[in-house]
Amino acid sequence: MGPVQGDSNTNINGKEQNNSNNDTIMPKEMYQAPACLKIPLTPPRKLLMGPGPSTVPPRILAASAIPLIGHMHPEMYQVMDEIKAGIQYVFQTQNELTLAISGAGHAAMEAAVCNLIEDGDVLVSFVAGMWGERFAEIGERHRAVTHRISKPLGSVFTLEEIEEALKSKKPTVMFIAQSESTGTILQPIEGIGELCRRYGTLLVVDSVASLGGTPMFMDEWGIDVLYAGSQKALNCPPGASPISFSQRARDKIAKRKTKVTSFYLDTNELANYWGCDAGPRRYHHTGPISTLFALREGLAILAEEGLEKSWEKHRRISRLMWEGVEALGLELFVKDEKHRLPTLTGIKIPTGVDWKKVCQYAMNTYKIEIAGGLGPESIGKLWRIGAMGYNATEHNVNTVLRVLSEGIKQCKITE
Amino acid sequence: MGPVQGDSNTNINGKEQNNSNNDTIMPKEMYQAPACLKIPLTPPRKLLMGPGPSTVPPRILAASAIPLIGHMHPEMYQVMDEIKAGIQYVFQTQNELTLAISGAGHAAMEAAVCNLIEDGDVLVSFVAGMWGERFAEIGERHRAVTHRISKPLGSVFTLEEIEEALKSKKPTVMFIAQSESTGTILQPIEGIGELCRRYGTLLVVDSVASLGGTPMFMDEWGIDVLYAGSQKALNCPPGASPISFSQRARDKIAKRKTKVTSFYLDTNELANYWGCDAGPRRYHHTGPISTLFALREGLAILAEEGLEKSWEKHRRISRLMWEGVEALGLELFVKDEKHRLPTLTGIKIPTGVDWKKVCQYAMNTYKIEIAGGLGPESIGKLWRIGAMGYNATEHNVNTVLRVLSEGIKQCKITE
Repeated sequence: MGPVQGDSNTNINGKEQNNSNNDTIMPKEMYQAPACLKIPLTPPRKLLMGPGPSTVPPRILAASAIPLIGHMHPEMYQVMDEIKAGIQYVFQTQNELTLAISGAGHAAMEAAVCNLIEDGDVLVSFVAGMWGERFAEIGERHRAVTHRISKPLGSVFTLEEIEEALKSKKPTVMFIAQSESTGTILQPIEGIGELCRRYGTLLVVDSVASLGGTPMFMDEWGIDVLYAGSQKALNCPPGASPISFSQRARDKIAKRKTKVTSFYLDTNELANYWGCDAGPRRYHHTGPISTLFALREGLAILAEEGLEKSWEKHRRISRLMWEGVEALGLELFVKDEKHRLPTLTGIKIPTGVDWKKVCQYAMNTYKIEIAGGLGPESIGKLWRIGAMGYNATEHNVNTVLRVLSEGIKQCKITE
Repeated sequence: MGPVQGDSNTNINGKEQNNSNNDTIMPKEMYQAPACLKIPLTPPRKLLMGPGPSTVPPRILAASAIPLIGHMHPEMYQVMDEIKAGIQYVFQTQNELTLAISGAGHAAMEAAVCNLIEDGDVLVSFVAGMWGERFAEIGERHRAVTHRISKPLGSVFTLEEIEEALKSKKPTVMFIAQSESTGTILQPIEGIGELCRRYGTLLVVDSVASLGGTPMFMDEWGIDVLYAGSQKALNCPPGASPISFSQRARDKIAKRKTKVTSFYLDTNELANYWGCDAGPRRYHHTGPISTLFALREGLAILAEEGLEKSWEKHRRISRLMWEGVEALGLELFVKDEKHRLPTLTGIKIPTGVDWKKVCQYAMNTYKIEIAGGLGPESIGKLWRIGAMGYNATEHNVNTVLRVLSEGIKQCKITE
């Protein structure tokens, strides 16, 4: 491939050049516009009862379509301030460094790692499903000395097990998921923060699939970095992910010898962009304006309802779900009720049933999402049915269980 | 802060504990819902004629509000395939590894760096404004041996200058911005790819502010990594950013000795998620579904119009803008017409005028955005007026120039 300037007759890559344009040499034969883009976008309307994204209510969809303002306009800074206040509320924290990462929950996970970890820092990740494994993998990529403490899918970790790991590995950072959604597990968090303080470890918690659906007290529980997703109980479109850093976490970041590898996720920059430091706000990147409008609306809905009522609603609806599942003669994946996620219910696949066909039956017949497992340890073992935020209604529970029951009857493996 | 389990009367952080909830110990006094979220979100309607985001047309806003489907549903994979085809078209490439990063243009910039660079790789960044500087900074964070070749704001680099740097620094990767929007510069790209092949260097080009508004032939010009933003001439909300990698770039990535530091931006993972490799698609992260709906709509609008017509429209409208500016007795920031961005016009601030007050006049009086500079080299030197995609109309040019003229009269410094 050669420079084409003034080279009007050279054959490059089999294309004739010409000079039809005054400013730029254009190839004679351009690649044509794809025909698929000439067909209007009309995705089917679905009831999303999987692990997320959950169905987004009309009020939040409407917020997504509000005409844009500039990412550095005063009104946008106000929206960001309000989002920050909303996240502080749902996290139950007064941390100043509280904001939404401009990306998926995975970007927030990566922000936790890349800000806290420097080469050779020790990380302990408690793994009972995909999220602990992902955090460990991201830690390794960021050159942490990484230890996995692993238990089978569907397990929780006890304070004794956690203390043992802190004592023996002396990690700089430990990770645990409150919501290990691949196993539909609710991991108790109370008490871990106190242990982490005793052993000089920073505590990172993933609440992606639980936030808003079950109690979370970031300050009270001594969590140093907490992050979540927007597309679960908050019912927002994905693309902006709440995160908060304690003063201890900020102190560790302030003492870094090296810059955070990621500029995009560097909390020193994000703190300024989100008005969490004293300086006037500088340009850092262009935030996802429409997604932030939607996130603000989701937080407003939750603030109007009140956290306690939302937690109570998820408790009530999840109990209806669990009773309904057992009434169908099915077995819940998590035995101990207090370790079941109130946002996402795991149901064991009965012998002789093709789990995938049941999901397809629900989707093809009713446009209802019933999810299978996620990750090698989880797929084929359980269905996962979500009832999150706006979707946590008695009607939805009855509907999805009726469809599940129908699907199982239709999809018995006969051979 | 202590573990609170079963510790119902302990005073922790000045808060009384109780046991009012069966499952979880709740602090007696929770942080209350913020009052600011009780006020409806009603940002003002604005005409965004700055460097972006540009005003989003109703058709794209409507796409942002389409009810969500799952990020791994077949219909979503189809949307992603169509976005990929659309990006291949606007980039004029047949690269298989073509997709939208789930983040801002800065995330795409970081994806270019983190996939191509390993410790000690040599990077040359051509700096004539903020974007070259940002790329260099991100390169340093990723431990590249980084050289900046710097010229003043408003400059372009010649092929001779580029060859000299390639010859002397022997970089693995070089970066140059087609659209150095901080100086409203259109940098010619033709010929650089040929030089890069001669010296064994990978060519990364930033077309964030120019894509869709001026010719771009990724394959013809031998660009190895090209990325853009969605919120400029594509008129989409920010949050999903087109990027494409040549086979040469993929070969470099395949030969890496270390994993890409970022899991979120790792093209080995993204290639699978976007259906760019042979394997069945795996879960990687949850893409920004609504933002992708909007991006598909923006690409569809451009495909319907046709690239040549869009380039011609921007050329015609920018010439109207330039003539109008000069008719007001003002001076264009970039002397040489062929180096002016056709999407964003730079206007020198006349002596005795408070540039900021003019911007405020336009915004306060008419809700029209006229932008100042960006970055220390640019602020106070120029106004920047965009006319991008949907906003590139004769009416908008006349309106913004009338408002600029009014503003200058109102905001003469009198002391």
